[in-house]
Amino acid sequence: MDTTKKTIIVFSGDLDKVMAAFIIANGAAAMGDDVTLFFTFWGLNALRKPENVATTKKSFLQWMFGKMMPRGADKLGISKMNFGGMGATMMKMVMKQQNVTSLPELIQTAKDQGIKMIACTMSMDVMGIREEELMDGLEYAGVATYLGEADEANVNLFI
Amino acid sequence: MDTTKKTIIVFSGDLDKVMAAFIIANGAAAMGDDVTLFFTFWGLNALRKPENVATTKKSFLQWMFGKMMPRGADKLGISKMNFGGMGATMMKMVMKQQNVTSLPELIQTAKDQGIKMIACTMSMDVMGIREEELMDGLEYAGVATYLGEADEANVNLFI
Amino acid sequence: MDTTKKTIIVFSGDLDKVMAAFIIANGAAAMGDDVTLFFTFWGLNALRKPENVATTKKSFLQWMFGKMMPRGADKLGISKMNFGGMGATMMKMVMKQQNVTSLPELIQTAKDQGIKMIACTMSMDVMGIREEELMDGLEYAGVATYLGEADEANVNLFI
Repeated sequence: MDTTKKTIIVFSGDLDKVMAAFIIANGAAAMGDDVTLFFTFWGLNALRKPENVATTKKSFLQWMFGKMMPRGADKLGISKMNFGGMGATMMKMVMKQQNVTSLPELIQTAKDQGIKMIACTMSMDVMGIREEELMDGLEYAGVATYLGEADEANVNLFI
Repeated sequence: MDTTKKTIIVFSGDLDKVMAAFIIANGAAAMGDDVTLFFTFWGLNALRKPENVATTKKSFLQWMFGKMMPRGADKLGISKMNFGGMGATMMKMVMKQQNVTSLPELIQTAKDQGIKMIACTMSMDVMGIREEELMDGLEYAGVATYLGEADEANVNLFI
Repeated sequence: MDTTKKTIIVFSGDLDKVMAAFIIANGAAAMGDDVTLFFTFWGLNALRKPENVATTKKSFLQWMFGKMMPRGADKLGISKMNFGGMGATMMKMVMKQQNVTSLPELIQTAKDQGIKMIACTMSMDVMGIREEELMDGLEYAGVATYLGEADEANVNLFI
């Protein structure tokens, strides 16, 4: 068993929870661990490009989900006291005051450190999210791939 | 250490999260792993029978909790954008369009694959849920049993 | 690998989730395991002293976060059906009826059993929570310390 691998399922699309996932992931990578992040359901929103992207045809319901969900790391709300986004804005302001790295920067660091980021293809179908709407550098796979990675890891979290 | 065992604590009663738990569990079982699901707090709602069941006496508060919580896998809401159940209905419609297995089918598959499903007895007391209100084929136990299972597993998640 | 160590990240500040964390932690400690709880983000609220405490200067936003978040284990809401605190009160009443240990008692038991409780210093900066506002007997550290503990454990949960 390889004790230097970690996996995190990023299910949540809340700013605070996604940040926690990346802080743990980047910390582990900085200590020399292999890290795999598996993005599923709302977690996919953290990977969306901020701009509206032309995609292959979606069903009406998929289109509606896509419209209603936040587009990218900068648009995520927080899991408590969000108050229509005000809470998220406040939290980002405090983070800036305290010199805490922002989520977009955390994602960039994760890429720079070679953290493997996998988007769950089944969730993409359910949420109606297409590859062209997500940031570059991702892998696309399903639960079997996640389980293979988790079997090699000594810490596996669901966030 | 047995590397072919997985445990998941299903704490959440949200459709999307319970689905994620069963998709991971069924995937692991299909790959030959032993899987134990431990249902606690709101997660118990996924196991409730849809019909009103006569039970041994409950306190008024237990009765009220029971009335307010969803009865069974078909009644669960989603964790975000539920809008009084409309979000859950939308998600189920998209899943049907995309030929994604529904939660009741996922639960049946879990049973067919011999996945061990344990209902947390302490949570049942707090939520006022009786054995006769839950589906057949469950085991009933507490945290010590969960810890025993987790000690034998190489992947342990809390959902 | 030490099979008798467990870690839990307590990210959530919901009464039901924090209770689940302590029930698992106390159960493991009672069975002879080493247990480390790492409190981050909303989870820190469970450790706050109930009274208003004079602290070193906070920014306006930190002060506001501090004012809005619950002060201590007795003030936490529940993650579903909280209805402005009524749900939490109801759940505490049922727990009392059923002789289920309350959260403040669970925390005391955790301390008595020597469970290591670590407050995440980065989260404290973001939430504007100072050491003098938190209960005694905590350790203060960051993600690297958590990862070191998790590497020694065989069960690692994120709640």
